[in-house]
Amino acid sequence: MGRVTTRRRVHHVTAAEAVARPDTLVVEEPLEIRVNGAPVTVTMRTPGSDVELTQGFLLTEGVIARREDIASVRYCRGAGDDGANSYNVLDVTLAPSVPPPAVDPTRNFYTTSSCGVCGKASLDAVRLISRHAPGDDPSTVDVETLSALPDKLREAQKVFAATGGLHGAALFDSDGTALVVREDIGRHNAVDKVIGWALEQQRIPSTGTVLLVSGRASFELTQKAVMAGIPILAAVSAPSSLAVDLAGQSGVTLVAFLRGESMNVYSRPDRVTG
Amino acid sequence: MGRVTTRRRVHHVTAAEAVARPDTLVVEEPLEIRVNGAPVTVTMRTPGSDVELTQGFLLTEGVIARREDIASVRYCRGAGDDGANSYNVLDVTLAPSVPPPAVDPTRNFYTTSSCGVCGKASLDAVRLISRHAPGDDPSTVDVETLSALPDKLREAQKVFAATGGLHGAALFDSDGTALVVREDIGRHNAVDKVIGWALEQQRIPSTGTVLLVSGRASFELTQKAVMAGIPILAAVSAPSSLAVDLAGQSGVTLVAFLRGESMNVYSRPDRVTG
Repeated sequence: MGRVTTRRRVHHVTAAEAVARPDTLVVEEPLEIRVNGAPVTVTMRTPGSDVELTQGFLLTEGVIARREDIASVRYCRGAGDDGANSYNVLDVTLAPSVPPPAVDPTRNFYTTSSCGVCGKASLDAVRLISRHAPGDDPSTVDVETLSALPDKLREAQKVFAATGGLHGAALFDSDGTALVVREDIGRHNAVDKVIGWALEQQRIPSTGTVLLVSGRASFELTQKAVMAGIPILAAVSAPSSLAVDLAGQSGVTLVAFLRGESMNVYSRPDRVTG
Repeated sequence: MGRVTTRRRVHHVTAAEAVARPDTLVVEEPLEIRVNGAPVTVTMRTPGSDVELTQGFLLTEGVIARREDIASVRYCRGAGDDGANSYNVLDVTLAPSVPPPAVDPTRNFYTTSSCGVCGKASLDAVRLISRHAPGDDPSTVDVETLSALPDKLREAQKVFAATGGLHGAALFDSDGTALVVREDIGRHNAVDKVIGWALEQQRIPSTGTVLLVSGRASFELTQKAVMAGIPILAAVSAPSSLAVDLAGQSGVTLVAFLRGESMNVYSRPDRVTG
């Protein structure tokens, strides 16, 4: 799309001097996702791979389970400043057999109205039911293979290198081969793009894969792995309590603080070998 | 609340050995925010400062403009596993003169239905109108003062030191004195907690202050600064294109890549002196 980075004038300031110069920035624009013509969400994203992003979002929110659940995806003809298509509104038409999402005034995935969101109850309240939970996935990954993944992700993150402003996510085979790498200003979006790619490739559930994220492992990222049937989630930084709890209950191997040959495995350590 | 961190058993793995040991994690739990009894949003947050978080959210989403706009805030009596209050649902009763938020099926702040979200148009579509825009704020901050802020924030981030899992946000006077520091697993939540504190302290608009965030400067964080009347927003990492555009249009001084005595100033550099 040619809209991933942009340039702005900046004053670079140090204690000694101030210099005006151009700077390359990562682009952030809103994407509105519609289903059967009705707005479902707006996410602030880096343009590019918008169809993947939308497909991954719909899969991980439980609206669709397979590629055939989508009849068509098109950019909404829109009104940019000049009346041209803005490429910031995508409308998804579901297959006739697929019910549209219940539109809830709160978060989309959150449909309980009970006044008690806590502990086990909270997990149930916000947790989607996956048709692809990876608990029975017998695949394993070697410690040395895992150790090498962050460098592979960083090398592939071209826009990050230019702007320092992007989260990365990548899907690897269990032998450490990169299947897909995606970047976005939003961490959830980068993962949705990766999972949307897997949907395109008919790789849902993504058995035998490792999903690596450049930042932390939150509940929502863990939920996305569960929904896509990804057995191993690895994060460069820290996990949250709810991420660990959900991974344990869903049979996901959660690896965090993956730095060099050191890592913490919070659940299903049997999948990490060597 | 005593729920900010928790402990889990972890397998610490290196190439040489695997050791099971306890690990301290940051807690992540959902908070449902209700206004006049109706659910408005659910955010995944680190418990603590929930009232500040809620007040800051309502201010920066444009629902309220001052402390008097809120009549009461209470934890909803809830059904945890044992029937006890879960402390994960807050109900805000607005003052009678304050209209409740329009509940929109998409993002709360996003109320346009036009099919053209792009460039200048997108900014208008997602931008809230601030009653406290800081364009006329004459305050300035010295380069050396700015340089010292990241270390002050890091020193105050106690939970981050224990878990590595938290974003930090802090409000400083223009002489570098820390007014408030807050942490959260969500970057927006940390900022909402800081701004909610300022609301409590009758410091909205927050003239003469610097808001520092531990990560990147996104559109939404910039919007929160605008809504709170904060003249200077500083980020340790990169800004996005839309953050720079919004800061420029709103008269916010946006500083990013603030590292040691080096920084980039993307808008209103006249406020950075020395």
